[in-house]
Amino acid sequence: MTTLPINAERLLGRLRELGQIGRGGDGRLIRLAGSDADKVGRDAFVTWVRAADLEVAVDRIGNIFGIWSDDANTNQAPVLLGSHIDTVINAGIYDGCYGVLSGLEVIETLKTSGYLPARPIVVAAFTNEEGVRYAPDMMGSLVYAGRLPVEQALATVGTDGTVLGKELERIGYAGSEEPGFFKPHAYIELHIEQGPVLEREGVPIGAVENLQGISWQRVTIEGEANHAGTTPMSMRRDAGYAAARVVTFLRDRASNANTPTVATVGCMSFEPNAINVIPSRATFTVDLRDPDEQRLQAEEAALAAYLKELAVAEEVTISVERLARFEPVTFDGKIVELVEEAARRRGLASKRMTSGAGHDAQMIARIAPSAMIFVPSIGGISHNPREHTPDGDLIAGANILLDVVSRLAAQ
Amino acid sequence: MTTLPINAERLLGRLRELGQIGRGGDGRLIRLAGSDADKVGRDAFVTWVRAADLEVAVDRIGNIFGIWSDDANTNQAPVLLGSHIDTVINAGIYDGCYGVLSGLEVIETLKTSGYLPARPIVVAAFTNEEGVRYAPDMMGSLVYAGRLPVEQALATVGTDGTVLGKELERIGYAGSEEPGFFKPHAYIELHIEQGPVLEREGVPIGAVENLQGISWQRVTIEGEANHAGTTPMSMRRDAGYAAARVVTFLRDRASNANTPTVATVGCMSFEPNAINVIPSRATFTVDLRDPDEQRLQAEEAALAAYLKELAVAEEVTISVERLARFEPVTFDGKIVELVEEAARRRGLASKRMTSGAGHDAQMIARIAPSAMIFVPSIGGISHNPREHTPDGDLIAGANILLDVVSRLAAQ
Repeated sequence: MTTLPINAERLLGRLRELGQIGRGGDGRLIRLAGSDADKVGRDAFVTWVRAADLEVAVDRIGNIFGIWSDDANTNQAPVLLGSHIDTVINAGIYDGCYGVLSGLEVIETLKTSGYLPARPIVVAAFTNEEGVRYAPDMMGSLVYAGRLPVEQALATVGTDGTVLGKELERIGYAGSEEPGFFKPHAYIELHIEQGPVLEREGVPIGAVENLQGISWQRVTIEGEANHAGTTPMSMRRDAGYAAARVVTFLRDRASNANTPTVATVGCMSFEPNAINVIPSRATFTVDLRDPDEQRLQAEEAALAAYLKELAVAEEVTISVERLARFEPVTFDGKIVELVEEAARRRGLASKRMTSGAGHDAQMIARIAPSAMIFVPSIGGISHNPREHTPDGDLIAGANILLDVVSRLAAQ
Repeated sequence: MTTLPINAERLLGRLRELGQIGRGGDGRLIRLAGSDADKVGRDAFVTWVRAADLEVAVDRIGNIFGIWSDDANTNQAPVLLGSHIDTVINAGIYDGCYGVLSGLEVIETLKTSGYLPARPIVVAAFTNEEGVRYAPDMMGSLVYAGRLPVEQALATVGTDGTVLGKELERIGYAGSEEPGFFKPHAYIELHIEQGPVLEREGVPIGAVENLQGISWQRVTIEGEANHAGTTPMSMRRDAGYAAARVVTFLRDRASNANTPTVATVGCMSFEPNAINVIPSRATFTVDLRDPDEQRLQAEEAALAAYLKELAVAEEVTISVERLARFEPVTFDGKIVELVEEAARRRGLASKRMTSGAGHDAQMIARIAPSAMIFVPSIGGISHNPREHTPDGDLIAGANILLDVVSRLAAQ
């Protein structure tokens, strides 16, 4: 069991360097998948991978792999680690990049230390995790896991009218490997939490044991527009009031449940949206998430039952449209235990937790035992220039990744 | 005491004829104050007034008066009746026009019958009651009552960049009489209810005893935008949820109060208004109305206290902007009794009620004893082509106006 330290200076230096690539004159960081900035970012990563004397492979969807293998272990299933280096618009520097660069850092540290892995260790940078330019998100890992045909993914037309496959060719990252060309022994992804829990609780390491299922719905309530002055309260069919009842129902139910369920109404609009007219229509979104599929279904059913009651009580018509639905992902218990054990050995507190956001790990979990390690995000802020994790936490997370990988690759 | 009937055919015919003036090729009725269509509508009214052998006077703000007086009563303060003939965009044919044309009808009926009034009887069509093109609404009666200087009103710039005074000159209705050139003995305005109460209760005549005070506020709640998936319920500062709490507070309070208070949240918006982001800001309007000033103040105070509690409980910042505030108007009890008595004599049910909408009567009430008569609006619908009152109710209302005017002008 190693207790090596990763090279903090090298990791942090690369993180900051990559964080300058794609930064415009206005200071905003943008490296959308398949863009010129993405190419420069990929080139920097590949340069570092080659400098570490790793083999570089690129598959047809543009996923980049830095492979450390030798004659003795080349036939074994590799330990895969990684994340993504594409970004949202006006991004922070940590999301995705921290996992990819830490993966490379771990391999370099192990290599330098004289560690002899029983199986190859591979760092991956998956294509288009953010999904900003091309939908869906987590596309590279989705294709790698065989859940989206590569031809279909390459044909995706972007928000700017471009075709992903053409853009990958243009920037030189339309590789030749077939996605899924190796099946990992295990996958482990290090990532910033993008939520407030670790920081608030003062815990440096999150041992991520599952990833929330997501249910997105759009609810439309139709009432009756009427004069706000002349219509007595008892004669109203107020769509806005009914919508407000749903908002409070969802929040109060989730808050009182003592479960990890989260419920959010993020979008809301009233019609005709006039100060002196009772709203005839309210449209809003419902975002329900839970790491347990049974409970997520129960929450959806509770909402449906409430809407039914509400429609009768308020004499309104309610329709629901499903916008998205993903089942929860359960990560591999043994890897989660390795994360906890590594934290314990380093004298760091850890906490089992749920990922509230989507990650490449949820796709790779379909083909290999997988888990994630989280480090704190200050204020829970992400997808924002104010995204920040203190250096000490970044270093600690990379050291835990090092320990877990060295254990996973030891046999 | 007369029990004459008004000439139903003549009244309904004029109402339908006026309702065609300003109707575009798309079928929409639009006679905004000072417009070409307004001119044609005014000309039609003046033609009918002259045909009835009444004197026509126009004041500087364009209010039109049809005056029935004789040598014996010309020095007495007149009984004034009327309303307005300007419309909103895509209007119905009843709002305002019904009161003006019924006023003329009442005078013609009394004249023909040989009735000899002790004082002049005057029908008025007030300028720009709707306030769509030029703010504020109820402008003609407001100026007549001396609460807005006529020069200031004439200088009003419209939504289309025009100036009201110039438009009145252009259409030939910049009159020479000084607004307020006579002080009425009494004012009585017949109007459709624009609310659902009379229809729902099956009562044909509303004896309007007061007019609601209005309090308009804009509330802004600032919370914290955070990821909908990664932020536990207990760590949220959800501006949208806090807004929903205010909506339900206002509605439930007004519904349970057993008072005429009405409370409406008509406008609502969330920021950033994204499905997977907890709202950082919610902005909404509050429309509170009550015929009692003490109670209206108490409702405002209750809302302020609730917002204060809510800000602490939800860790949000709440700011309030006052958009408008009008005190309630109490109409003249004796005239209201005359309305009730007239209904009783005609064998019609009546109901004392509050006007939830604003009317010229609230302005004239500042200079003369005033009241209103309401007739049912089907479905409470107004400011809409579906605005409708059955002919029988229109005729009944005009007959009550006839009876009340003949009493008011008898001494």
